[in-house]
Amino acid sequence: MALLFLSEADPVDQWREALLAEMPDLDFRVWPDQIGNPLDIDVALVWLPPPGELSKFANLKAILSLGAGVDALIEDCTLPNLPLARMVDPSLTRMMADYVLAAALRHHRNLDFFEHEQRSGRWTFKFPKLVGDRTVGILGLGVLGSAAAACLRDFGFKVQGWSRSEKILDGVACFHGSTQLHSFLSNTEILICLLPLTQDTEGVLNTSLFAALPSNACLINVGRGRHLVEGDLIEALENGQLAAATLDVFETEPLPKASRLWNEPRVLVTPHVASYCDPRSAAAGVVENIRLVRAGRPPNHLADRARGY
Amino acid sequence: MALLFLSEADPVDQWREALLAEMPDLDFRVWPDQIGNPLDIDVALVWLPPPGELSKFANLKAILSLGAGVDALIEDCTLPNLPLARMVDPSLTRMMADYVLAAALRHHRNLDFFEHEQRSGRWTFKFPKLVGDRTVGILGLGVLGSAAAACLRDFGFKVQGWSRSEKILDGVACFHGSTQLHSFLSNTEILICLLPLTQDTEGVLNTSLFAALPSNACLINVGRGRHLVEGDLIEALENGQLAAATLDVFETEPLPKASRLWNEPRVLVTPHVASYCDPRSAAAGVVENIRLVRAGRPPNHLADRARGY
Repeated sequence: MALLFLSEADPVDQWREALLAEMPDLDFRVWPDQIGNPLDIDVALVWLPPPGELSKFANLKAILSLGAGVDALIEDCTLPNLPLARMVDPSLTRMMADYVLAAALRHHRNLDFFEHEQRSGRWTFKFPKLVGDRTVGILGLGVLGSAAAACLRDFGFKVQGWSRSEKILDGVACFHGSTQLHSFLSNTEILICLLPLTQDTEGVLNTSLFAALPSNACLINVGRGRHLVEGDLIEALENGQLAAATLDVFETEPLPKASRLWNEPRVLVTPHVASYCDPRSAAAGVVENIRLVRAGRPPNHLADRARGY
Repeated sequence: MALLFLSEADPVDQWREALLAEMPDLDFRVWPDQIGNPLDIDVALVWLPPPGELSKFANLKAILSLGAGVDALIEDCTLPNLPLARMVDPSLTRMMADYVLAAALRHHRNLDFFEHEQRSGRWTFKFPKLVGDRTVGILGLGVLGSAAAACLRDFGFKVQGWSRSEKILDGVACFHGSTQLHSFLSNTEILICLLPLTQDTEGVLNTSLFAALPSNACLINVGRGRHLVEGDLIEALENGQLAAATLDVFETEPLPKASRLWNEPRVLVTPHVASYCDPRSAAAGVVENIRLVRAGRPPNHLADRARGY
């Protein structure tokens, strides 16, 4: 029995150290050079495995995602039909809420506007607003969306949220289902996308949604690149429907050199850094899932492939 | 008895409405066109009055500042020797804390770095840090500094503060006096200046102070422009002692066209917008001070001219 670690983005040495601290007898193998006998592998901890790769392990019993979103795994039709667990980790949740507050405050306090004015050498005073006079809306109230909503609410923003099915969150005005989407959008000044990527949510950030926001709204996309129709965003920025956007995720990552987003002054591009899970905090949950799988039980935070997340 | 309102920066109509709501019989006069008989004026509510202007009111009994800092008033040697009150107002305090958190989070989450990389079309991943692994230090623990410290602490940063005389703040490591300044600076990764401007603090943000910070520290100046030696800042950014700065205040405001700060990519210039007091929230305190003065008593939040604030 051995764990396969497969990620080109996560810090392998920190993961090894953190997992061995929780489970000293863990046989930790690293893709692609330290796999050993593929038949030993019973659990895989992965981020963006190359298609077909996981089907090489005949004794694999479960796949644990290093990311909160499992859309890329579910879309991979070569993925073995095994239990698949999302990453749920306090540090990942916290870091996402921090990024969302950082981006929301940057828009709220007009720092994006002042950066733009500075590049033109202009001193343009704009009265700040109190947080209690600003409405922030979150699309998606899962683990990450709910935590971001709570963080924004605790800081003093007016917060509302929208989710597919009904949710109740203290101090957050909750909307649900397609019939309530327009009411939710109509007074959202800063919109945050934390939806899972599914067939239903792909392309949801488009011209028709932007038109339902108050003019000069701001968009923060920390879901997935394919939630956003990039051409529609550029058009909405040009016609004033949107004032600015912060994008951490893109249809193609790294963002291609030729993308117009690099040179769009009202867009901040960050290189998919909103959150990652810190091995120090996440190792305990991963070890718990390894133990559950080895005891013949399903891991925690099981993804539902039909639902798409 | 009449109140003189003198400010070219504050919204006069909102002030009139808010003050009359609290004190319907208030005789509200506006400088320079609606003064009426100068002998009627007994209280002045002011922001940056032209030197000599307030000495024209023979029956003036007190001066109330519209700003938290009274350095410009104290430095004006033509100012009548009357009780002078600082502005202390919940909305002003809150707005300052919001700006400080917005600027601190922008540095903490490397948004300044990513903005810079974006302008060069570069996708450069940088691992985010958890807030609990970041130390923020505040110079000045008066009303504004203490509130900013509490806001940063509540958000989860490691917070330390320095003040001239000893202060105790829950959950904030407090340093005081010149002997403890270096210990305070030695592990401050993001430094925030909220000192009052006095003869002792003018030019405090200089090469020698920057050298005491860890390398690649960030500076946020929301005190006064003259706390900072601008040439020393540019040098510290160029030699890597400082990674970035957010400046809301400048020696000369508006910042002159010729200033090098406009074109310094590691500096964010904002046009003195960190905070202002919202008349809706501040009017009650102003009316209380008018009543105290008319009852022959000193106003609240009296400045000490010898101390300088």
